[in-house]
Amino acid sequence: MAPSFDIAFPDSHFGQPTWEQGEKRLQQLALETLIGKAGIGPDQIDTVCSGDLLNQCIGSSFSLRNMGIPHLGLYGACSTMAQSLLTCAMMVDGGYAKQAVAMTSSHFASSERQYRFPLGYGGQRTPTAQWTVTGAGAALIGATGEGPVIESCTIGTVTDLGIKDANNMGAAMAPAALSTIMAHMEDLSVAPGDFDRIITGDLGKLGKEALLALASAEGLELEEKLDDCGTMVFDLQTQDVHSGGSGCGCSAITLCGHLLEQIKTKKWSRILFCGTGALLSPTSTQQGLPVPGICHAVSITAGGDR
Amino acid sequence: MAPSFDIAFPDSHFGQPTWEQGEKRLQQLALETLIGKAGIGPDQIDTVCSGDLLNQCIGSSFSLRNMGIPHLGLYGACSTMAQSLLTCAMMVDGGYAKQAVAMTSSHFASSERQYRFPLGYGGQRTPTAQWTVTGAGAALIGATGEGPVIESCTIGTVTDLGIKDANNMGAAMAPAALSTIMAHMEDLSVAPGDFDRIITGDLGKLGKEALLALASAEGLELEEKLDDCGTMVFDLQTQDVHSGGSGCGCSAITLCGHLLEQIKTKKWSRILFCGTGALLSPTSTQQGLPVPGICHAVSITAGGDR
Repeated sequence: MAPSFDIAFPDSHFGQPTWEQGEKRLQQLALETLIGKAGIGPDQIDTVCSGDLLNQCIGSSFSLRNMGIPHLGLYGACSTMAQSLLTCAMMVDGGYAKQAVAMTSSHFASSERQYRFPLGYGGQRTPTAQWTVTGAGAALIGATGEGPVIESCTIGTVTDLGIKDANNMGAAMAPAALSTIMAHMEDLSVAPGDFDRIITGDLGKLGKEALLALASAEGLELEEKLDDCGTMVFDLQTQDVHSGGSGCGCSAITLCGHLLEQIKTKKWSRILFCGTGALLSPTSTQQGLPVPGICHAVSITAGGDR
Repeated sequence: MAPSFDIAFPDSHFGQPTWEQGEKRLQQLALETLIGKAGIGPDQIDTVCSGDLLNQCIGSSFSLRNMGIPHLGLYGACSTMAQSLLTCAMMVDGGYAKQAVAMTSSHFASSERQYRFPLGYGGQRTPTAQWTVTGAGAALIGATGEGPVIESCTIGTVTDLGIKDANNMGAAMAPAALSTIMAHMEDLSVAPGDFDRIITGDLGKLGKEALLALASAEGLELEEKLDDCGTMVFDLQTQDVHSGGSGCGCSAITLCGHLLEQIKTKKWSRILFCGTGALLSPTSTQQGLPVPGICHAVSITAGGDR
């Protein structure tokens, strides 16, 4: 899916002195690209709803320093792209903003040293581990205009089945994904057959298998419809990323690049984008607590007559 | 203002094995108290919008584990109470939720060890430092009912004048507070005289003085109207808290306790509640970066005829 990305950058510092500032630059690049593609000025953006995985979300706040754009900081772990989309959709549909931007990022190197080990330590990764995507995505949500349409959203609940392995986040998030997908289907009176694809954020290979099994046990057959950004964003055969991609940036770049392109080119007419997040911190892990999961669903259509 | 609080707790662990889990328990206590006072069930809360200062906001997410209540995690540093109020107000006014809860917490001990030094180290505090409030507040926002009314909100921008002293957050946040107060006055065509009080979140004694000076230089005289939760929540004469209180919990308990009580008892008919946040992290401080500030304003009235 590489051609669907606007920018590919060979330097993981993005010209900055540290990875954290590189991640800030990543969000700036995403926002600058959005502004350029939309042909608007920063003063035409009423709010940027954004978040990231860094402590105190500094990737987001520092990227917007002195830009003069109102900012709401969000934290939904890797579900943040879906959360920012649905927050923008409520703001625009309710008439509180004419145009709002949903944006998130993640960075492999800044995440590794914050959540796990310093990269220079060279620690081995467990087979269930995922590889945090270094990337940022930004989407402009407006009341008018052409392009894909957000038709409905479901806000998820914090679901915790007691999984304590911080290196198996897919398994920890799968129950939350199932809970939100089932709630969305019931509340909106839709079924998997009403969607071209149901796409989770970053369950990875193992988490996707867990979700399929959990869903099947509830009588919900997702096999033919389910995809996961974590298994799509990397080539699991040739790239050594174990269970797949993860991070806010994983679902952000897959959505803003590949997924929306399929809708814009009318290959798909309706998807359910399900951002998944593992609500752990290094402190909660060190204190022996389980990994709660959350999932927010955003139903996106091609607009016009279906 | 102690009598305006629902619960005062002598144990800073709140019966939990760690301060972080104590902070989680603080939010649970706030939510349980809200549910009891409102006489509703958890299933009548459509969304909890909440956040805190802990890395990855675990105070908020862990407090809602398996509660079955939809959750949007927010991060606005100490401005989070104002951000959660305005997010809930948009959700309810727009028709996306019937009832939503805005909730935040902070904890002195969990904050100190995360942002500064381990408490056992016994480090001296600088004269400009503030004391993180150990407390949580929760407010129920509904489309109908009695009580104070949110009439308008202004979402702030990330403002950074280059202050690099992480122990002088009041000075770092004052420019953001001025920017948002001026934007609110201009956008809503109101003046300080239209409010009984304009109340910032946690500028503290020094930050409040900085805001008064900055505002005066812009021709805005706030002297007679300005209060700050950071200077109200503690007795600065008898309690050794240096420049005053801070943290999400500072503005949350002052608003949900004292401020709303003044409105409910008709002592005040209109306030501008201005949550202030310092968007730093230990990593950004260690990398020599300045402290960006943000401020969100929520205009609250007694409702009915004014």
